[in-house]
This record gives sequence, structure tokens and C-alpha cells, in this order.
Amino acid sequence: MRFFSDNAAPAHPKVIEAIAAANRLDTAYDGDEWSKRLDGAFSDLFGTEVRAFWATTGTAANCLALAALCPPYRAILCHRDAHIEVDEAGAPGFFTGGAKLVLLDGEGAKLTPATIADACDAIRKDVHQVQPAAVSITNATEYGLVYRAAEVAAIGKLAKERGLALHMDGARLANALASTGESLADVTWRAGVDALSFGFVKNGGLNAECVVLFRTELADEIAVRRKRAGHLLSKGRFLAAQILAMLDDDLWLENARAANAAAQTLAIAATHRLVHPVEANEVFLQVTADEAAHLRRQGFDFYDWGPGEIRLVTSWEQKGEALERLAAAIAAL
Amino acid sequence: MRFFSDNAAPAHPKVIEAIAAANRLDTAYDGDEWSKRLDGAFSDLFGTEVRAFWATTGTAANCLALAALCPPYRAILCHRDAHIEVDEAGAPGFFTGGAKLVLLDGEGAKLTPATIADACDAIRKDVHQVQPAAVSITNATEYGLVYRAAEVAAIGKLAKERGLALHMDGARLANALASTGESLADVTWRAGVDALSFGFVKNGGLNAECVVLFRTELADEIAVRRKRAGHLLSKGRFLAAQILAMLDDDLWLENARAANAAAQTLAIAATHRLVHPVEANEVFLQVTADEAAHLRRQGFDFYDWGPGEIRLVTSWEQKGEALERLAAAIAAL
Amino acid sequence: MRFFSDNAAPAHPKVIEAIAAANRLDTAYDGDEWSKRLDGAFSDLFGTEVRAFWATTGTAANCLALAALCPPYRAILCHRDAHIEVDEAGAPGFFTGGAKLVLLDGEGAKLTPATIADACDAIRKDVHQVQPAAVSITNATEYGLVYRAAEVAAIGKLAKERGLALHMDGARLANALASTGESLADVTWRAGVDALSFGFVKNGGLNAECVVLFRTELADEIAVRRKRAGHLLSKGRFLAAQILAMLDDDLWLENARAANAAAQTLAIAATHRLVHPVEANEVFLQVTADEAAHLRRQGFDFYDWGPGEIRLVTSWEQKGEALERLAAAIAAL
Amino acid sequence: MRFFSDNAAPAHPKVIEAIAAANRLDTAYDGDEWSKRLDGAFSDLFGTEVRAFWATTGTAANCLALAALCPPYRAILCHRDAHIEVDEAGAPGFFTGGAKLVLLDGEGAKLTPATIADACDAIRKDVHQVQPAAVSITNATEYGLVYRAAEVAAIGKLAKERGLALHMDGARLANALASTGESLADVTWRAGVDALSFGFVKNGGLNAECVVLFRTELADEIAVRRKRAGHLLSKGRFLAAQILAMLDDDLWLENARAANAAAQTLAIAATHRLVHPVEANEVFLQVTADEAAHLRRQGFDFYDWGPGEIRLVTSWEQKGEALERLAAAIAAL
Repeated sequence: MRFFSDNAAPAHPKVIEAIAAANRLDTAYDGDEWSKRLDGAFSDLFGTEVRAFWATTGTAANCLALAALCPPYRAILCHRDAHIEVDEAGAPGFFTGGAKLVLLDGEGAKLTPATIADACDAIRKDVHQVQPAAVSITNATEYGLVYRAAEVAAIGKLAKERGLALHMDGARLANALASTGESLADVTWRAGVDALSFGFVKNGGLNAECVVLFRTELADEIAVRRKRAGHLLSKGRFLAAQILAMLDDDLWLENARAANAAAQTLAIAATHRLVHPVEANEVFLQVTADEAAHLRRQGFDFYDWGPGEIRLVTSWEQKGEALERLAAAIAAL
Repeated sequence: MRFFSDNAAPAHPKVIEAIAAANRLDTAYDGDEWSKRLDGAFSDLFGTEVRAFWATTGTAANCLALAALCPPYRAILCHRDAHIEVDEAGAPGFFTGGAKLVLLDGEGAKLTPATIADACDAIRKDVHQVQPAAVSITNATEYGLVYRAAEVAAIGKLAKERGLALHMDGARLANALASTGESLADVTWRAGVDALSFGFVKNGGLNAECVVLFRTELADEIAVRRKRAGHLLSKGRFLAAQILAMLDDDLWLENARAANAAAQTLAIAATHRLVHPVEANEVFLQVTADEAAHLRRQGFDFYDWGPGEIRLVTSWEQKGEALERLAAAIAAL
Repeated sequence: MRFFSDNAAPAHPKVIEAIAAANRLDTAYDGDEWSKRLDGAFSDLFGTEVRAFWATTGTAANCLALAALCPPYRAILCHRDAHIEVDEAGAPGFFTGGAKLVLLDGEGAKLTPATIADACDAIRKDVHQVQPAAVSITNATEYGLVYRAAEVAAIGKLAKERGLALHMDGARLANALASTGESLADVTWRAGVDALSFGFVKNGGLNAECVVLFRTELADEIAVRRKRAGHLLSKGRFLAAQILAMLDDDLWLENARAANAAAQTLAIAATHRLVHPVEANEVFLQVTADEAAHLRRQGFDFYDWGPGEIRLVTSWEQKGEALERLAAAIAAL
Repeated sequence: MRFFSDNAAPAHPKVIEAIAAANRLDTAYDGDEWSKRLDGAFSDLFGTEVRAFWATTGTAANCLALAALCPPYRAILCHRDAHIEVDEAGAPGFFTGGAKLVLLDGEGAKLTPATIADACDAIRKDVHQVQPAAVSITNATEYGLVYRAAEVAAIGKLAKERGLALHMDGARLANALASTGESLADVTWRAGVDALSFGFVKNGGLNAECVVLFRTELADEIAVRRKRAGHLLSKGRFLAAQILAMLDDDLWLENARAANAAAQTLAIAATHRLVHPVEANEVFLQVTADEAAHLRRQGFDFYDWGPGEIRLVTSWEQKGEALERLAAAIAAL
């Protein structure tokens, strides 16, 4: 059984059904009936007027948003282990036209107002140094930690004081909210987030993510940038339909809860081995190379994170007997 | 009935089935079993070793290829009405980092060795003028004309003499080949094409196009550029599976033949109104505004191409009674 | 004697003196006393508050301004023969991050409100086509024609109506004004120009041009872009001193008058051969290859502009006997 | 007296004379007699065939070279305090089209084979992480330390093994060589350096630096990139003449020796306060805020480098009484 990545998981059956149901003649690009419903659906979900743009990858969603928030000659502050720095092949540099990522430290890949303020203060206010324009945080973080609404709000407050835009990479935002029970509104726009990459693919989607803009005046620019980056699919209805299926009856939350529950099952079996608290659907364990090999021989697949450390990611469909077997195998190490 | 664009057409049922069949746990990105089969499948299809990369849009496929063929400080020669110039929101400039499109004239959006040679000769060989690095042709063209293999070979020969790479935008390559009966090999690599955007979406696909590299040494660069542009989908198997379904039993050719046949039905009904010969699945007609309105009142939808001109595009699933009704309506104008 | 280009001319002695006089210890970059005087000097000269930035080339001045006026995903309208299109190696694409030049026709490289309006109207208002953001005109033009203030004002009015910024490439603005006797203010900011590249190098300077911003709110961005493009010289005082020397006692106008007078001397000698009216310091003549060879044998150097056409450019120091000899030689052809 | 920066120093009289002597009519851009002599002059100086390109700033020289050595989708390894990272406003990102700087640690801003190897090893070999393409070192470093030829050779060897190009920022290369007495050849191309930014402005030049290419096959690309970045001055002879004057009778070495000697005078006066060994012309001292204020009251100007630390930079013309007074003032603190 694979605990390698939630990207490896299948799409939820309702998503597949939605795609099949959308397979009718309609208008190309995003002029179809499904795409047109997105703004309204997300505005309802967030309790404020937003603009929503489907995209096929988190990298695209992140970098389209960042390009609208940061000019080529300025910088984005993010954690040293942020996905945009570590796993997007330099896409922020490409989409922004050369903006710089300034890398910050922080436990569990979390930023704080203090680390952000310190980073800003270390930059001389002259033309020789690249001035910051935006902050990007990931929620849940790359280590499976979750920002509470109050934490985001504190960052949002500082960002506003410093004239910085705030972007949230929400590839696993569903898992974060399933964990805290807080509201989408509280952890995003009410906390000062300007643009959100709302992830669905890791959470049961097939290939649809969403850029949600709280600063709706950026919508025209994002629309053009999306086309210009080759991300305006000609049959966009198949993306919009997936997203609407995920929003229907809160399937996104239901899937995230299932994934989180699976992670808890593993966490409980491995309490003394946890590298980070398990707050969402990622489990980082201290495991020797021999122990890792032993688990793999039993048919479990996962990611070697570093010397003596492995990463297990659970998904919406991992439960039942296979999961219990893994939990038992870890406990038995 | 919509004759607005082949992008508006539904996906072929076999494509939808292939997506559903691929909905299993597998490796993320392009490490899955379907994606891994693409190089072999296309190498067989083309009768030479190629590297194949799925992409979600023709714009992405075109511009990834062009970025690998043309450095930022050089130019791409293309027709003034080429899709890369007219309908991709400046994507070539974005992907290449600012390379220039030099716009050539030519009947029916076709280039010839003579127009290309003239364009090259008009550029002074110094650092003040942007020197050309590549030629891009569209087959079938934006006006539905088809390049014969010999025509491409003549362009390929000139390109080689001038040190230019040759790219083919094959958004409707299937329609071109269904029309001429020539072979994929003859009209591409044997004719000197270095990189091809092989279109499937307009031809019954859902959201998978393909970059086919005949210069396989560019593969690593394309792979990195694809990721960096946010085009490496995390569940790539759903794209690869679509493409494999299109290749199976030559579904791509069968669909193209159906679309072309539909176009011929319309062409025959409108012989004296044709703006361009109908060689693929696009029909440009001279029609007054009143006549266009009359057709629309009968439930037909199409694109106003310019004063007194309309564009009808047929797709794989347009046939039978509705098509006959349109043909009759045009004939009756 | 060389009539190849005003770039080939020597610097005026007062410019060399100013450089020598600035050769003292001072603050680096643009913090020195000379650089600090530029804003005031140009504000006085233009009769309105401006911000002025030295640069070493017209290409840099043009493209820094254009990058601030046009985002990467939009277009700049200019003449097909504009220097930014023809002779800057694609620099606009580099500085803007891939913005597109839309090429317009017009007698003598001049634009008109009508050609600009037509170009705008031909662009569909959707995300597939690149929308215009700016217009760039050259005064005097690449063929030595001059825009009158009223002509610029008409373009400026249209630009404003269409939401377009207006840039003027003034590499030979001095020659234009020396020709018309109009005021700097009337032909620039009062006519709606947002940013000006004010040329000095062709007019007796050594290596200092100037970006003059009438939209002063762009100053911070230009300052950063200049540094980022490697154009913030560490001993900027040597550029500022040159410019101040050119402004002193209207040396810029005096030099331009001399160059224009030299061009008139040639024009009078060649009335029936003129390709364009001679309004500034460029003379385009119809001359056969044999005639051109004949002139060259007499020691005159110039540019072959095309079949049967040559370009002669006069500079501030061309007068007296050598000039008379050329005039006579042309008359004697 | 100013010890703020060697950029603030005057140009050497011979440089001013050379400019005045070059003030004749000649060919524009780099077609003049002075520019044409550069390749030969530098080939002689380095004892191997090189191509040499004048540029007006170190930022331009560095980034033109880096853009030719590193594609947009790869990374440049450099020290965390390297000028290209800290003081060039993101120019490497602009010139390369978004390449990434990977920041390494190292005493005194020096890299070693070990730190470079570790940085490479930490990058996963997949498309998700940005792969390195080049290493850039600064000699003398930003803290005034000097690489010995053997140290550069060790880095060059590793770079070659790893497939990385090697760039040297030689803004103060003259000072480095004046310090070690080693040869230009040994510390550059024999040690594996592919491209060098050879600084003259800090060392008595006015506004001419030089890109020296040991990989001469990159020359055409550099020539185009220089033009495209607005760095091809129309009267290039005034830059070439400066550089030739600096090479004449080894003025570059003589000036650097003078600057180094001045730094030693200060170093001897401040032995117990030195933050770094003084190997070139930069002196970093531990000095309290009160002490710094005391020095300033005596008329000395310098840079506050951080809490309790100041930077003094000496130049070719700092000697004699004023220098002795500063040395005494420091000793007397």
C-alpha cells in the first residue's frame, strides 16, 4: 500500500462522475456553465465576494497568484522548506519574471510575525537590495503543521503594516480546516490573506486546483496570466465540474477528515517516533534504514525524508485493514 | 447545434472510459505506468525514436517546444495569422523569455521556403537586429489548409540550410493527415520537423495534448521547463491514459476523418461561398450579416470571422441529421 | 568624412571638460552633487515637476521607461520602423519580460491617431489576444521627420481615451525642436507624453542619455529597474556632469541647430533626390550603386539604406569645407 | 576624507587623458579602433586567446556572463554575502530570466570545494528541484579576502567534475593579484574559470569594466545579450580607451598596489580590531558606535557594516597625510 504521496491517490468517484456528466457540447475555455458557477460557489463558501480560477496544478495556482502580488524586481518571503522554494523547479522565478524568494527559518515550516519582521529589517531600504512585496505561507505546512486563524491573522496584520501582500498555499488547506474546525473565512480573508491556492488534487480531485482571489481587482490580470502561461484549458468545464463536485455536500471536508483520521491512526501507533506533531495528513517518523526496509518488505511504500526519517502521507481513501496493518507494523518495529 | 469550435465538442467516450480506468493508486507526476508508455507508443507511431510529453493545452505544448528551440534573444518566424501570434496571449514571449515573433504573409496562413528566405534576408546580420532561430508552421493551418509532406520537406530543407529549427503546431494534425493520407513520419521528422505539438483535445480528447520531440536531446530541458511552468500534473496518468486511448486502434485518425467528412458535407453545400479550399475540418464562408443571422435563428452557432465572413468548425461527433440540416440551410441561403 | 551616424561624432569639448571637472571624490552611484541636480534642472527646463534618470544608452532609456509603462502581458504600439523594433536587439522584450510590439504603418515612420485607433480596434477584447498598454513614438523619427506639438497632442489625446501610456523616444528630440522652434513642454508633457528618452549622445554627449518621467510616481520603479539592469553606474557623477553641461546655455539646442543646418546644406544640394523631407539631421537620398561608389571614392562615408537609397546623418561638428565638398559632390552626381 | 567605497574615488588622470584622446570621429558601437584592440590586449595579458567585452558596471559584467553560463531553469551557487546576491537588486534573476541563486556559507565570503559539493549533494536530481549550472566566486571577496590560485583551481576542478561553469566576479581582482603576486592566468583560466568580470572602476577607471571570456565560443551570445540589455554604448571607444589606459604599463596593478598599501597602513594601526585579515583593500573593524562617531567627527567617512562593525575601503589615491591621520585616529581610539 502506498503512503508515498496524496498525489498518488485515486480521484474520488464523485469527481469521475462529474467529469462524465460534463461531457456535453458547451462553450470552450471558461465560458461554460460550470466555470461560470465558480465565482458564486466560492463566494458563498467564503462568505465574501471572491473571484475563482481553476488551474491544473498547485504550482500554477501558487505562481499565478504570486506573479500578480509581486513585481519582477521585488521579493517574496517564505519558509526555507516551502513548496514554492523546494519543489516547484523555480516556477516563482519564471512566473514573476525573476522575483526573488527570501528564505526564512521556523519550526515545522511555519512563519511567524517575528521571523517576517526580522527578515524585512535585515533588508537595507535602497535600490541595491531587493525589497519584499509579499509573504507566502503554506497551510497545512510541508511538515503537516496547521496555522490557526489567529496565527494567520497575526501574520496578516504584520504584512499589512509592512505593505506586503499575503498569499496562502492551501494545497492541504482542507486538511488544515478539518483539523482545527475553524472556518475558511477566518483562516483566509478575515486574517488578511489576499490570494489563496485552494488544493483539491491531493484531496480526491483529478486535476483541478483553484486560485481564489480576495483582492478581486486582480482578477483580470490573473485571467490574462493564466492564458499566457498555457493554463487556460480549452475544455475548462472538466475542471470546473470537478471542483463543484468537491464543494457539493462538503466532499472536500469529508475527504480531508478521512485522510486526517488515517494519519492519526498512524501517529498513535508511533507516538515516540514523531518528528513533528501530526495535525493534518502527514506523518514524519524517526525510523532507521533497517526499520524502513523492514516496512517496505511488508508492502508499504513511503518517502525517505532524510537520514533516519521517513514521510507517510495519508489520503481520503486510506482506511480499514491495510491502514491498520501499517499501524501495527510501525508499532511492532 | 454548435459549429463554433472543435474545442467545444465533447470528449470521445473511449477517452472518458480510459480516465475512469486509470483511477487507481499509482505514482505521482509522470512516473506512472501510462505516462511511461508514451515514449514507446509515439516512437512506434512515428517509426523513429521520439520523446513524448503530455501537456494540457496547445499553447503549453507549442511554447514549451519553442522555448527549447529559440533562446530569449532570437526570433521565431511564423505566419501573421498563426495561433502562437494571434491567440496565445503572448505565451511565446513568456515561455521563451522575450523572443520575438517575426510575422510572415502567405495564402491561407501557409509559409513557403520563399517567404521564409525573404524574411531571413531582410534581417541584417548584426547584434542590433534579432536573428531568427526557428520557424513555426501550423498543420492544418488556421484556415484549414493542409501542408503536404513535400511542402514541409521544402521548408525543412531551407530551415536546415539557414540553421533554423522547425516546429509544427499540430493542433489539427490529425485532420491534416486524414485529409492527405500521408504518413506521420513523412510530414514530420522526415521532412525536418524538430518538435511537434500533437493535438488531441480538438479531436475528441478531454485535456491532453502532446509535445513530440524528434530531437530527443531536448527531452531533459522540456521536462524541466514543463515542471517550471506548472504543467507537470501530479496525477499525470489521467492525461497519458487519454492519449493512449486516442492512439488505440487509430481513434485519432478515425475521429479526424469524421470531422473532415462533416466539413466536406458543408463545403459541398457552399461551394460558391468558400473563402478557402476545405482541406480539413474548418469551413470559411462568405455570408452576409443577414444570412448569418438567418442561420443562427435556425439554431446554428458559429464564429464571425470578419465582415461578411463566418467560420464553421466541425468535430468528430458532428454528423447525421443536424449536419444535413445545416448543409441544407447554407445551400438555401 | 563620415556621415555614417551621429553616434560616430566626437563629444563636444564642453562635455569632456565637464567630465574632467567632475573627477573628484564624491558619493558613489547617484548620490553625488551632479546627479542630485538633475531633477531640478529638468523640471526647470520642462516647466513642470519631473524626475530625471541618467542612462548610458538610448536602448536602456527607452526600455526602462517602457517596462514601467507596459506589463509583461500587454503590448506596445509603435511604428514598424521604430528603433525599439528594428535596432534594439529585442531589448523591449527583455526589459518588459516579454511584452509584445504591435507594428503600425505610417509615412516617414510617423504614427497618427487613426493608425493607432485602427490597431487597437483590430485587437479582440479577450484574454487570447494581447491587449495594448502603451504607444511609443520617435521624435524626430527614424527618417528624420518631426512631430509638431499638435500632432503629439492628438496622439496623446487618443492614448488617454484608450487608456494607453505614451512614450517618446527622443534620441533626436533636440533636432526636432531645433527644427520647429516649439517648446519642450508643448511637445512632451502638455501633449500627453508620460515618459521621455531624452538623447544627448548623438548630439555631442559622450555616454549619457536621460529618462525624463512626467508621471513622477514611476520614479521609484525606474530607479530599481535601472539598478537591476546593471545601469546604475558606480561613478554616476560622470554622466550627470555631461548632461548638465549639455543643458548649460542650451548647448543641446545649439548643437542640434548646427547638425540641422548641415543637413539642410546637403538637402539643398540634392532636392530632387530626397526620399523624405529633411526636417532634422537625417538625409535620405535616391542614389544608384555607381553614384554611391563615386561618392565613397571621394572620401565620404554613409549608410546604404536599401537598393538605390543612402542615409547621411549630420552631427553638431559637421560644417565648413568638408560639408561643402560633400554638397558639391552630391550636386555633381 | 572618504573611506566609504572605492567607487567614490576619482578616476586616474591617465584614464581621463585617454578619454580626451579618444574624442575623434570613429565608428559607432564597438567597431572603433580602441574596442577592436581589446581582444588582443587581454589575450596577451592572460596568455591565452580570450574575448573581451567592455561594460559600464560590475553588475552588467557579472550578469551578462552568468546569463550565458546558466539557463533560466537552473541555479548559480554563490556565497550568501556575494555581491550578486546582496547588492545587485536581483539583476542575476533579470539577466538569466529567473535562474536561482543558491546561497552557501563560508568564512570571509569564500567558497570551498567542500561547501560547493555539499550544496550540490543536497539537491535532489529530479525536475522538482532546480539543478545547479554554475558557481560564482568573488576575488577578492566582499570581505577583502583573496583566493590563491590553488584554491580557485580546487574549485575549478570540482566544478568541472560536477558539470558546472565557473564565474569569477573580479571587481577587485587587481587588488587580489597585487596582494598575492600570482599571475592572472593562474588564478583564472588555468584554474578553470570560464568567464571573468574584470573590474576597473573601483581601481581608477571612470566607467568601464570588462567581461573576459575564456570560453570564447560564448562571445556571440554575450555580444547579443549586451546589446539587448542596453549595454552596447554608441560611443564605445570611450570605454575601450579607458581600459587600454589601465592596461598600459600595468596601471591596473600599480593602482591596486597603492590601494592595498593604504589598507595595510590602516590594518597595522588596528591589529586587534580586525574582523577579517586584510588581504586586499578592505578593512573591517570592530568599533563601537561611540568610537565610530568619534572618527566621523574627525572628518573620516566610512560604512557601518553592522552592530559594532565598520568597513573602510581604500583606493588608488589614498595615501600620505590624510591616511596617516586616519591610522593614528584608529590607533588612538
